[in-house]
Amino acid sequence: MIGLSSYVGVMESEINFAEEQQPLSPQANSWTNKQDQKPKVFGGFVLVHAGAGYHSESKAKEYKHVCKRACQRAVEQLKAGVLAVEAVAAALVELEDSPFTNAGMGSNLNLSGEIECDASIMDGKSLHYGAVGAISGIKNPVLVANRLLSEAQKGKLSAGRIPPCFLVGRGAHDWALSHGIPSWPSEKMATKFSLSAYRRNKRKMELAEKMEPGQTKRRRQSSENENGSGCLDTVGAVVVDLEGNVAAAVSSGGLAMKHSGRVGQAAHYGCGCWAENGCNLNTYSTAVSTSGCGEHLIRTMLARECSSAMQTEDAHRALLETMQNKFISSPFLASEDRVLGGVIVLRCCRCVETQPSQNIQGILVEFLWSHTTESMCVGYMSAQDSKARTHISRLPPGTVPGQSLAIEGGVCRLMSVAE
Amino acid sequence: MIGLSSYVGVMESEINFAEEQQPLSPQANSWTNKQDQKPKVFGGFVLVHAGAGYHSESKAKEYKHVCKRACQRAVEQLKAGVLAVEAVAAALVELEDSPFTNAGMGSNLNLSGEIECDASIMDGKSLHYGAVGAISGIKNPVLVANRLLSEAQKGKLSAGRIPPCFLVGRGAHDWALSHGIPSWPSEKMATKFSLSAYRRNKRKMELAEKMEPGQTKRRRQSSENENGSGCLDTVGAVVVDLEGNVAAAVSSGGLAMKHSGRVGQAAHYGCGCWAENGCNLNTYSTAVSTSGCGEHLIRTMLARECSSAMQTEDAHRALLETMQNKFISSPFLASEDRVLGGVIVLRCCRCVETQPSQNIQGILVEFLWSHTTESMCVGYMSAQDSKARTHISRLPPGTVPGQSLAIEGGVCRLMSVAE
Repeated sequence: MIGLSSYVGVMESEINFAEEQQPLSPQANSWTNKQDQKPKVFGGFVLVHAGAGYHSESKAKEYKHVCKRACQRAVEQLKAGVLAVEAVAAALVELEDSPFTNAGMGSNLNLSGEIECDASIMDGKSLHYGAVGAISGIKNPVLVANRLLSEAQKGKLSAGRIPPCFLVGRGAHDWALSHGIPSWPSEKMATKFSLSAYRRNKRKMELAEKMEPGQTKRRRQSSENENGSGCLDTVGAVVVDLEGNVAAAVSSGGLAMKHSGRVGQAAHYGCGCWAENGCNLNTYSTAVSTSGCGEHLIRTMLARECSSAMQTEDAHRALLETMQNKFISSPFLASEDRVLGGVIVLRCCRCVETQPSQNIQGILVEFLWSHTTESMCVGYMSAQDSKARTHISRLPPGTVPGQSLAIEGGVCRLMSVAE
Repeated sequence: MIGLSSYVGVMESEINFAEEQQPLSPQANSWTNKQDQKPKVFGGFVLVHAGAGYHSESKAKEYKHVCKRACQRAVEQLKAGVLAVEAVAAALVELEDSPFTNAGMGSNLNLSGEIECDASIMDGKSLHYGAVGAISGIKNPVLVANRLLSEAQKGKLSAGRIPPCFLVGRGAHDWALSHGIPSWPSEKMATKFSLSAYRRNKRKMELAEKMEPGQTKRRRQSSENENGSGCLDTVGAVVVDLEGNVAAAVSSGGLAMKHSGRVGQAAHYGCGCWAENGCNLNTYSTAVSTSGCGEHLIRTMLARECSSAMQTEDAHRALLETMQNKFISSPFLASEDRVLGGVIVLRCCRCVETQPSQNIQGILVEFLWSHTTESMCVGYMSAQDSKARTHISRLPPGTVPGQSLAIEGGVCRLMSVAE
């Protein structure tokens, strides 16, 4: 059994605001699943992460900055009236384009010195999903995943063929090109930092293998590598729009020095991200994005587990218990000495007003993050904020990464007055 | 809403037998999870499928024959004392090697005329899992998945790297070769039948695209292709050994005329197969393998859903409800007109004897299959049977594939007398 020590500190930041009064029909921004019915007032909320891993103080500013930009991109889209799924894709593009994150530009190099990316996106409204795995030569893998999602929504292909939701490798690359997404030179994806990290890791591996020839290239543990900066910095985002639709996305360059063709949780249904609008069965709409060691996140299906857990009343307790029981102490990871990962979670429901009024529509958004890695960088913003807030969450001093967790979050109320 | 009409006919076939008396310690074949403790008497039970799809009367004999051989292969292994996971891999090799099934040899060709296979395997004892997606030039994809599983069980790689559980494409192929699994010429994987089906499908597609130029190569439905023989004949197996360990595996050539790089449920954790030994939380050990339209099986995570449902008392009712509520009527597939798939399920628990005796050890095995496709071919055998039983299950006449289901199964009691 792994000893647990949890750090709990929920940050309650309630943001109340009202949209400017606009002449609207009452149902225009209500909580509906009706197709093709967009609200006349636009807005929403976004929560992003730049990975659960280790974020050095020296680079904290950069990580925060990219989270801020990603939030702003999503909010711009929400204000322009797009659905949550498009806003979440916009946030991801910004996160992928940063050379500091392990996704898109600046991704970890694999064993062969190549960049192969995973990404997926899920739309809580249609429950459609798109994913790419081990894709090379594409600047923004999330855009291919998003295009797979939107193409699948159009229905069957010629001769009754079912459109794919998950493409990998060369086939994924070729599909992207045939759908108007341009190729991008692989050498432009690598950065000075990712190349030097590759050379350093390569030397470390060679040294390790020299030192342990009898162990058929294996040893149980090397703490330094596992928590090295840039190893686990998958990125992701969760969004809710003013219609109450949720969406989630995730993108990753994968573990440093992974084998060519390795696919991590970022491309795995139920593991990298999850989004599900509320319905008759589920009170809450939920959206989740994960980060960390892909194999751990796959085998525990962490995104979907967190989403399911969010249907109970106390979101904070539900996430805490899920992270402890379904991740750190998961029977699926019983042989692992340290279980490394993090999640961002958003759940929302229709607001109940103290003074009910037909023309006040509101959505109560609860947002949380939790991680077992040393740190996790997050940012969040509502469409009414002038700028995003960012935060680097850290495990409390003295606790052990992979055996302890941090959990924090807040509350935001999205409201609009429909005269 | 989709109209439901279900055909229910559980076939109860109780097989009681006792192993020959052998001088044994009482715990040698008991229900334990202790490492490195193998029973002195060997045996178990296997259930296989040669796909949910359409099995013509003319080829029924061949499908049954390959199921029979696959059962025998697994039973040979069980009698030799291997664990469930090795026995299930042996069954899969036989199913893959048949030119009649859509897995390994004889797989469907993709849009580019190439064969790309998916396979995965899960060990209910260690809860480890291995999978390959869109792999070419390997005769038995399941052996690569199994090797990934066993390599991951050995612990970390050099310099603390986490071993992969899921590899795709060229990287998967290269990994297989570097682990002693030989390459196999792709042209030897295609059969006369798969090549002629490819040419026929290609013509059909070209015709369809000519007839619907305005629809950007799309149309809503083409019933003929969807149920064409060979389209959905993924193969799989579930096994329990006399220690009570369960394992499951699945292998597929994927949908005919799929895009290159498309990965289906057979490589997807939780979707293609699932195996979980009983523990404190779960009374029953469960193993599941699925077949059918990969995208439908992925989006409903059918293997894991069926496994979870099996913890309630009535296995038959649990499977019926899961197939109806979590598959045919799944909100995740609300836009699909027909939901095509099938599952084989095995669950088992320690027998409670009417006259308790310390030296009689037993396992009660319940096995079921269910499908929404026109037919599903299954075979099953216990280590005490002289030959396997096979069956082609069909939807009742007049019911609609994708909207109705068939469900059948049986019971088998595995017992050994430990004097």
